[in-house]
Amino acid sequence: LESDLERLIEGLTLSYHRLTARADALHGPRGVTTGIRALILLLEQAGPLTMSEIAAARSVSRQFIQRLCQSLAAGGWIETRPNPRHRRSPLIALSEKGKAEAGRIRALEAPLLAQLAAEVPAQDLARAADVLARLAERLGAEA
Amino acid sequence: LESDLERLIEGLTLSYHRLTARADALHGPRGVTTGIRALILLLEQAGPLTMSEIAAARSVSRQFIQRLCQSLAAGGWIETRPNPRHRRSPLIALSEKGKAEAGRIRALEAPLLAQLAAEVPAQDLARAADVLARLAERLGAEA
Repeated sequence: LESDLERLIEGLTLSYHRLTARADALHGPRGVTTGIRALILLLEQAGPLTMSEIAAARSVSRQFIQRLCQSLAAGGWIETRPNPRHRRSPLIALSEKGKAEAGRIRALEAPLLAQLAAEVPAQDLARAADVLARLAERLGAEA
Repeated sequence: LESDLERLIEGLTLSYHRLTARADALHGPRGVTTGIRALILLLEQAGPLTMSEIAAARSVSRQFIQRLCQSLAAGGWIETRPNPRHRRSPLIALSEKGKAEAGRIRALEAPLLAQLAAEVPAQDLARAADVLARLAERLGAEA
Protein backbone atom coordinates (compact mmCIF):
# COMPACT_ATOMS: atom_id res chain seq x y z
CA LEU A 1 0.00 0.00 0.00
CA GLU A 2 1.21 3.43 -0.96
CA SER A 3 1.96 5.93 1.81
CA ASP A 4 0.51 9.46 1.97
CA LEU A 5 4.00 10.83 1.39
CA GLU A 6 4.37 8.78 -1.78
CA ARG A 7 0.94 9.98 -2.96
CA LEU A 8 2.06 13.54 -2.20
CA ILE A 9 5.28 13.12 -4.20
CA GLU A 10 3.34 11.56 -7.08
CA GLY A 11 0.87 14.48 -7.04
CA LEU A 12 3.55 17.15 -6.93
CA THR A 13 5.56 15.47 -9.70
CA LEU A 14 2.54 15.20 -11.99
CA SER A 15 1.44 18.78 -11.16
CA TYR A 16 4.96 20.03 -11.87
CA HIS A 17 5.08 18.30 -15.28
CA ARG A 18 1.63 19.57 -16.24
CA LEU A 19 2.36 23.13 -15.05
CA THR A 20 5.54 23.03 -17.11
CA ALA A 21 3.61 21.86 -20.17
CA ARG A 22 1.09 24.70 -19.68
CA ALA A 23 3.87 27.28 -19.32
CA ASP A 24 5.56 25.93 -22.46
CA ALA A 25 2.31 26.26 -24.38
CA LEU A 26 1.81 29.86 -23.17
CA HIS A 27 5.37 31.16 -23.50
CA GLY A 28 7.22 28.81 -25.86
CA PRO A 29 6.06 30.68 -28.97
CA ARG A 30 8.05 33.74 -27.73
CA GLY A 31 11.16 31.59 -27.12
CA VAL A 32 10.57 31.59 -23.35
CA THR A 33 11.34 28.05 -22.12
CA THR A 34 10.54 26.85 -18.59
CA GLY A 35 14.06 27.65 -17.40
CA ILE A 36 14.03 31.13 -18.96
CA ARG A 37 10.59 31.81 -17.47
CA ALA A 38 11.69 30.77 -13.97
CA LEU A 39 14.82 32.94 -14.07
CA ILE A 40 12.97 36.02 -15.38
CA LEU A 41 10.42 35.71 -12.56
CA LEU A 42 13.13 35.11 -9.95
CA LEU A 43 15.07 38.22 -11.02
CA GLU A 44 11.87 40.26 -11.04
CA GLN A 45 11.06 39.17 -7.50
CA ALA A 46 14.54 39.20 -5.95
CA GLY A 47 16.27 41.93 -7.96
CA PRO A 48 19.82 41.55 -9.37
CA LEU A 49 21.65 38.38 -8.24
CA THR A 50 25.00 36.72 -8.83
CA MET A 51 25.11 33.33 -10.61
CA SER A 52 25.91 31.60 -7.31
CA GLU A 53 22.89 33.19 -5.65
CA ILE A 54 20.67 32.11 -8.54
CA ALA A 55 22.00 28.53 -8.39
CA ALA A 56 21.41 28.39 -4.62
CA ALA A 57 17.88 29.80 -4.91
CA ARG A 58 16.87 27.15 -7.46
CA SER A 59 18.85 24.19 -6.09
CA VAL A 60 20.46 23.62 -9.47
CA SER A 61 24.10 23.54 -10.57
CA ARG A 62 26.09 26.69 -11.38
CA GLN A 63 26.87 25.16 -14.82
CA PHE A 64 23.16 24.89 -15.58
CA ILE A 65 22.61 28.53 -14.56
CA GLN A 66 25.57 29.63 -16.67
CA ARG A 67 24.07 28.06 -19.79
CA LEU A 68 20.66 29.48 -18.94
CA CYS A 69 22.09 32.99 -18.50
CA GLN A 70 23.73 32.71 -21.94
CA SER A 71 20.27 32.02 -23.42
CA LEU A 72 18.73 34.96 -21.56
CA ALA A 73 21.53 37.31 -22.60
CA ALA A 74 21.19 36.15 -26.23
CA GLY A 75 17.46 36.85 -26.05
CA GLY A 76 18.10 40.32 -24.60
CA TRP A 77 16.16 39.59 -21.37
CA ILE A 78 19.08 40.16 -18.97
CA GLU A 79 22.17 42.35 -18.66
CA THR A 80 25.18 42.04 -16.37
CA ARG A 81 26.22 44.80 -14.00
CA PRO A 82 29.38 45.27 -11.96
CA ASN A 83 28.99 43.94 -8.42
CA PRO A 84 30.27 46.44 -5.83
CA ARG A 85 30.78 43.63 -3.30
CA HIS A 86 32.52 41.04 -5.51
CA ARG A 87 34.42 42.28 -8.53
CA ARG A 88 34.60 38.78 -10.02
CA SER A 89 30.91 37.90 -9.57
CA PRO A 90 28.91 40.35 -11.70
CA LEU A 91 25.22 40.85 -10.97
CA ILE A 92 22.59 39.50 -13.37
CA ALA A 93 19.68 41.92 -13.79
CA LEU A 94 16.57 42.07 -15.98
CA SER A 95 16.83 44.40 -19.00
CA GLU A 96 13.87 46.57 -19.98
CA LYS A 97 12.81 43.78 -22.36
CA GLY A 98 13.13 41.28 -19.48
CA LYS A 99 10.96 43.41 -17.20
CA ALA A 100 8.28 43.66 -19.88
CA GLU A 101 8.46 39.89 -20.41
CA ALA A 102 7.96 39.26 -16.66
CA GLY A 103 4.73 41.26 -16.82
CA ARG A 104 3.64 39.39 -19.94
CA ILE A 105 4.30 36.01 -18.31
CA ARG A 106 2.22 36.91 -15.27
CA ALA A 107 -0.61 38.35 -17.35
CA LEU A 108 -0.79 35.23 -19.56
CA GLU A 109 -0.80 32.89 -16.53
CA ALA A 110 -3.36 34.83 -14.48
CA PRO A 111 -6.48 33.22 -16.02
CA LEU A 112 -5.16 29.68 -15.39
CA LEU A 113 -4.24 30.54 -11.79
CA ALA A 114 -7.67 32.07 -11.16
CA GLN A 115 -9.33 29.00 -12.60
CA LEU A 116 -7.27 26.60 -10.48
CA ALA A 117 -7.71 28.66 -7.30
CA ALA A 118 -11.48 28.48 -7.78
CA GLU A 119 -11.30 24.67 -7.82
CA VAL A 120 -9.88 24.12 -4.32
CA PRO A 121 -11.02 25.73 -1.04
CA ALA A 122 -8.57 28.49 -0.03
CA GLN A 123 -7.93 26.92 3.37
CA ASP A 124 -6.92 23.60 1.79
CA LEU A 125 -4.58 25.43 -0.59
CA ALA A 126 -2.99 27.30 2.30
CA ARG A 127 -2.45 24.11 4.34
CA ALA A 128 -1.03 22.22 1.37
CA ALA A 129 1.30 25.16 0.67
CA ASP A 130 2.54 24.97 4.28
CA VAL A 131 3.19 21.22 3.99
CA LEU A 132 5.13 21.68 0.74
CA ALA A 133 7.18 24.55 2.19
CA ARG A 134 8.12 22.27 5.11
CA LEU A 135 8.95 19.40 2.74
CA ALA A 136 11.14 21.63 0.56
CA GLU A 137 12.89 22.99 3.64
CA ARG A 138 13.67 19.49 5.00
CA LEU A 139 14.88 18.35 1.58
CA GLY A 140 17.19 21.35 1.43
CA ALA A 141 18.46 21.05 5.01
CA GLU A 142 19.68 17.46 4.75
CA ALA A 143 21.26 17.70 1.31
CA LEU B 1 0.76 39.85 -1.99
CA GLU B 2 1.29 36.26 -3.06
CA SER B 3 -1.70 33.92 -3.19
CA ASP B 4 -1.86 30.51 -1.48
CA LEU B 5 -1.93 28.88 -4.90
CA GLU B 6 1.28 30.64 -5.89
CA ARG B 7 2.89 29.56 -2.60
CA LEU B 8 1.72 26.03 -3.32
CA ILE B 9 3.23 26.09 -6.82
CA GLU B 10 6.47 27.53 -5.44
CA GLY B 11 6.62 24.81 -2.79
CA LEU B 12 5.92 22.00 -5.23
CA THR B 13 8.47 23.31 -7.73
CA LEU B 14 11.20 23.60 -5.12
CA SER B 15 10.31 20.19 -3.65
CA TYR B 16 10.39 18.67 -7.12
CA HIS B 17 13.85 20.11 -7.87
CA ARG B 18 15.22 18.99 -4.52
CA LEU B 19 13.72 15.50 -4.80
CA THR B 20 15.27 15.24 -8.25
CA ALA B 21 18.66 16.30 -6.89
CA ARG B 22 18.37 13.68 -4.12
CA ALA B 23 17.44 10.96 -6.60
CA ASP B 24 20.37 11.95 -8.83
CA ALA B 25 22.74 11.70 -5.88
CA LEU B 26 21.40 8.24 -4.94
CA HIS B 27 21.10 6.67 -8.39
CA GLY B 28 23.29 8.74 -10.74
CA PRO B 29 26.41 6.69 -9.92
CA ARG B 30 24.69 3.62 -11.47
CA GLY B 31 23.75 5.60 -14.59
CA VAL B 32 20.12 5.92 -13.47
CA THR B 33 19.00 9.48 -14.31
CA THR B 34 15.72 10.98 -13.08
CA GLY B 35 13.96 10.04 -16.31
CA ILE B 36 15.28 6.47 -16.26
CA ARG B 37 14.30 6.13 -12.59
CA ALA B 38 10.75 7.36 -13.25
CA LEU B 39 10.23 4.98 -16.17
CA ILE B 40 11.60 1.95 -14.29
CA LEU B 41 9.23 2.64 -11.38
CA LEU B 42 6.28 3.23 -13.71
CA LEU B 43 6.85 -0.07 -15.54
CA GLU B 44 7.24 -1.88 -12.21
CA GLN B 45 3.93 -0.50 -10.98
CA ALA B 46 1.87 -0.63 -14.19
CA GLY B 47 3.40 -3.62 -15.98
CA PRO B 48 4.27 -3.59 -19.72
CA LEU B 49 3.08 -0.48 -21.59
CA THR B 50 3.25 0.92 -25.12
CA MET B 51 5.19 4.15 -25.74
CA SER B 52 1.94 6.06 -26.19
CA GLU B 53 0.66 4.82 -22.84
CA ILE B 54 3.93 5.83 -21.16
CA ALA B 55 3.79 9.30 -22.72
CA ALA B 56 0.18 9.77 -21.61
CA ALA B 57 0.93 8.60 -18.05
CA ARG B 58 3.77 11.09 -17.66
CA SER B 59 2.31 14.01 -19.64
CA VAL B 60 5.44 14.22 -21.79
CA SER B 61 5.94 13.95 -25.53
CA ARG B 62 6.24 10.65 -27.34
CA GLN B 63 9.60 11.85 -28.75
CA PHE B 64 10.95 12.31 -25.23
CA ILE B 65 9.79 8.81 -24.25
CA GLN B 66 11.34 7.36 -27.40
CA ARG B 67 14.75 8.78 -26.51
CA LEU B 68 14.35 7.67 -22.91
CA CYS B 69 13.48 4.11 -23.99
CA GLN B 70 16.62 4.02 -26.13
CA SER B 71 18.67 4.82 -23.01
CA LEU B 72 16.88 2.16 -20.98
CA ALA B 73 17.32 -0.45 -23.72
CA ALA B 74 21.03 0.44 -24.01
CA GLY B 75 21.37 0.00 -20.24
CA GLY B 76 19.64 -3.37 -20.38
CA TRP B 77 16.79 -2.29 -18.05
CA ILE B 78 13.95 -2.89 -20.53
CA GLU B 79 13.01 -5.24 -23.35
CA THR B 80 10.32 -4.97 -26.00
CA ARG B 81 7.65 -7.60 -26.46
CA PRO B 82 5.10 -8.13 -29.21
CA ASN B 83 1.75 -6.53 -28.41
CA PRO B 84 -1.15 -8.92 -29.07
CA ARG B 85 -3.54 -5.94 -29.41
CA HIS B 86 -1.47 -3.65 -31.68
CA ARG B 87 1.13 -5.26 -33.92
CA ARG B 88 2.82 -1.88 -34.58
CA SER B 89 2.98 -0.73 -30.94
CA PRO B 90 5.24 -3.18 -29.11
CA LEU B 91 5.06 -3.39 -25.32
CA ILE B 92 7.92 -2.03 -23.21
CA ALA B 93 8.63 -4.26 -20.19
CA LEU B 94 11.28 -4.37 -17.46
CA SER B 95 14.04 -6.92 -17.99
CA GLU B 96 15.35 -8.97 -15.04
CA LYS B 97 18.02 -6.29 -14.58
CA GLY B 98 15.30 -3.62 -14.65
CA LYS B 99 13.25 -5.42 -12.00
CA ALA B 100 16.28 -5.69 -9.74
CA GLU B 101 17.00 -1.99 -10.30
CA ALA B 102 13.44 -1.05 -9.29
CA GLY B 103 13.97 -2.82 -5.97
CA ARG B 104 17.34 -1.13 -5.49
CA ILE B 105 15.84 2.32 -6.19
CA ARG B 106 13.10 1.78 -3.60
CA ALA B 107 15.52 0.39 -1.02
CA LEU B 108 17.91 3.34 -1.40
CA GLU B 109 15.07 5.88 -1.13
CA ALA B 110 13.30 4.28 1.85
CA PRO B 111 15.41 5.97 4.56
CA LEU B 112 14.80 9.45 3.09
CA LEU B 113 11.05 8.81 2.77
CA ALA B 114 10.87 7.55 6.37
CA GLN B 115 12.74 10.62 7.57
CA LEU B 116 10.47 13.02 5.64
CA ALA B 117 7.28 11.23 6.71
CA ALA B 118 8.34 11.63 10.35
CA GLU B 119 8.59 15.42 9.88
CA VAL B 120 4.97 16.12 8.93
CA PRO B 121 1.80 14.83 10.66
CA ALA B 122 0.25 12.00 8.62
CA GLN B 123 -3.10 13.77 8.38
CA ASP B 124 -1.48 16.91 6.88
CA LEU B 125 0.38 14.75 4.35
CA ALA B 126 -2.85 13.00 3.36
CA ARG B 127 -4.73 16.30 2.90
CA ALA B 128 -1.90 17.87 0.91
CA ALA B 129 -1.76 14.73 -1.26
CA ASP B 130 -5.49 15.11 -1.95
CA VAL B 131 -5.06 18.78 -2.94
CA LEU B 132 -2.20 17.94 -5.30
CA ALA B 133 -4.12 15.07 -6.86
CA ARG B 134 -6.98 17.50 -7.55
CA LEU B 135 -4.59 20.12 -8.93
CA ALA B 136 -2.92 17.60 -11.24
CA GLU B 137 -6.31 16.37 -12.41
CA ARG B 138 -7.53 19.89 -13.24
CA LEU B 139 -4.28 20.69 -15.03
CA GLY B 140 -4.68 17.52 -17.07
CA ALA B 141 -8.37 18.03 -17.85
CA GLU B 142 -8.06 21.51 -19.37
CA ALA B 143 -4.93 20.88 -21.43
